[in-house]
Amino acid sequence: MLDRIRIVLVRPMRPGNVGAVCRAMVNMGLSDLVLVSPACDLADEQAQGFAARAKPLLQRARIVDSTPAALAGCIATFAASAKGGMYRRQAAMTAAAAADLAVEAAAAGPVAFAFGPEDRGLVMRELLHFDRVVEIPADPEYPVLNLAAAVTVLCYEVRQAWLRAGGRPPWSPREEPVAADERKRMLYAKLFDALDEIGFFDGQQNPEHLKYALRRVFGRANLTANEVDILIGMAQQIRWYADRHPRAGDTPA
Amino acid sequence: MLDRIRIVLVRPMRPGNVGAVCRAMVNMGLSDLVLVSPACDLADEQAQGFAARAKPLLQRARIVDSTPAALAGCIATFAASAKGGMYRRQAAMTAAAAADLAVEAAAAGPVAFAFGPEDRGLVMRELLHFDRVVEIPADPEYPVLNLAAAVTVLCYEVRQAWLRAGGRPPWSPREEPVAADERKRMLYAKLFDALDEIGFFDGQQNPEHLKYALRRVFGRANLTANEVDILIGMAQQIRWYADRHPRAGDTPA
Repeated sequence: MLDRIRIVLVRPMRPGNVGAVCRAMVNMGLSDLVLVSPACDLADEQAQGFAARAKPLLQRARIVDSTPAALAGCIATFAASAKGGMYRRQAAMTAAAAADLAVEAAAAGPVAFAFGPEDRGLVMRELLHFDRVVEIPADPEYPVLNLAAAVTVLCYEVRQAWLRAGGRPPWSPREEPVAADERKRMLYAKLFDALDEIGFFDGQQNPEHLKYALRRVFGRANLTANEVDILIGMAQQIRWYADRHPRAGDTPA
Repeated sequence: MLDRIRIVLVRPMRPGNVGAVCRAMVNMGLSDLVLVSPACDLADEQAQGFAARAKPLLQRARIVDSTPAALAGCIATFAASAKGGMYRRQAAMTAAAAADLAVEAAAAGPVAFAFGPEDRGLVMRELLHFDRVVEIPADPEYPVLNLAAAVTVLCYEVRQAWLRAGGRPPWSPREEPVAADERKRMLYAKLFDALDEIGFFDGQQNPEHLKYALRRVFGRANLTANEVDILIGMAQQIRWYADRHPRAGDTPA
């Protein structure tokens, strides 16, 4: 489904940006790139360097000579724009909302996100080619993202939307089981016993306060079974050491 | 509050990336950049060009010579990593989740997100400096983002989290002060030293894995200053005990 999300760069000027766009697309699982009348050399070293392992996408990007040609076949089209103005504002939606919409629409056919040239972005009359305008929420003091940065955020949001919609996660959440309560209680018992043995609670007015603090720390950490095993190992080692090297005075030297 | 979110670049190699990071930060309203031993010239034309209107941030970025120095004063620290491996996986959270956590934590003090060099990222032993590991969900076929792209996504998510929180801290900070990074590092140093002294790491094929597990547990726990004091007390007690009762065989009986 992500293969139906098309990225369109209109008259890109800097080869490094085109390369970086390729990499961000491949990072996020996208594979359909169309360039409208590129104003730079795609064989440039910068383009190749920024594309890194995404060079194959750079090589197979389609080149067309008009925005409508780039949008051919698409069932939904979005223009990225950081500019203000009433008309844009009324049509604008956030990148996250647009990504949700795009992923939904992609079930039915190709969907395009287009980005204008580095210096001016898409101008008003070009915006008329698109169904919607997308804005990346940014600081009003300096809201204009670099071209590759804007595409990166958009591709990232598309992937997030795809994951939300049930696309396979890139990595399963923690596979390791969380520790059972009884196992954690064994940890606390062993740790407190070992610390008592080496005199950690000696002279404390309120040893329970110390125990409670330790208990709280581990409680907050949402320990895995393996981590509890390691911590039990630590407690046992303290105890083992104390047993093997008893306190001076406790046993005959 | 966004001014409390620090971006740390560890040994960045390409000036263009550093410039692009500055621009992405300013786009998203961030202003605290620290560079650890940069391996490139910040006066380079590429750095200036990619920074665009964010050049002032490039000029005032602080330069330090170690990762711990970059994290000084931070109450929560995150390392970006795209690498797999069980230990990273267990500590990892998504960029969106990390951003929520960071915005919440920033109510109490500075929070850092660190990114490694372009070629290798942060290596295992460097990850030990951090409370958490952040992953940007990406395509498993090519999950490694360009440095500036990774920072862009992270800054974007931080801004989104800040907006979700109403552009204000979501809740008043915990009354108890949260521990500073340097204090936590002292805890880990003392604890590992004490455990080493009692032989906890003896015979372990990979003692670093144990250290990393302990580090991760405490990292997740969001320790208060008082809790760190208690844990340092515990480590000192183990060490004190071991010194007073040296290992059999280590000293004449």
